[in-house]
Amino acid sequence: MNSNLHNLLGYAAGSISMISFIPQVYKTWKIKSAKDVSIQMFILYTTSTFLWIIYGFTSNQYAIWIPNTIVLFLSITQVILKIKYDMRDKKEQKLKDNK
Amino acid sequence: MNSNLHNLLGYAAGSISMISFIPQVYKTWKIKSAKDVSIQMFILYTTSTFLWIIYGFTSNQYAIWIPNTIVLFLSITQVILKIKYDMRDKKEQKLKDNK
Repeated sequence: MNSNLHNLLGYAAGSISMISFIPQVYKTWKIKSAKDVSIQMFILYTTSTFLWIIYGFTSNQYAIWIPNTIVLFLSITQVILKIKYDMRDKKEQKLKDNK
Repeated sequence: MNSNLHNLLGYAAGSISMISFIPQVYKTWKIKSAKDVSIQMFILYTTSTFLWIIYGFTSNQYAIWIPNTIVLFLSITQVILKIKYDMRDKKEQKLKDNK
């Protein structure tokens, strides 16, 4: 495969990986709930994204480190929203139990 | 960064990306619900993973295409489970509405 096409493929794959996180962060923000979402997934994913950034940066593979920098931001946002809404649910549950 | 270390970084990043999907698939399977999970995320992620496999395969980057082949399987599994449990929820909702 010629290198231009190969670079294009990398940009496409990276951009779609990046875009794929937006619907989940949006859905969590909209419905104000992430009960069914696994926090372990997003903590692990944040870690791997961080490593991909170093991998791509140290080998000048823009197709890898640029999209992953944005995914890192989205993944951290998802972790924060998940913790926020799970803590709210726990508080509400406690109030109900104490009634 | 020397190439061995760089390869190691790629394997680590790829393996953690791969592992990160297991808790989400397991959680969905265990609680039999994926209401809060975004299907658009996993459909987009399946697409990007497929492109990463071609990207890595055509440039002999094992650190990219091997983990992504497993992620593809996990991502498709998540889409199937999500559809399955959402359809069951819809059916149950219809039964309740018809009572």
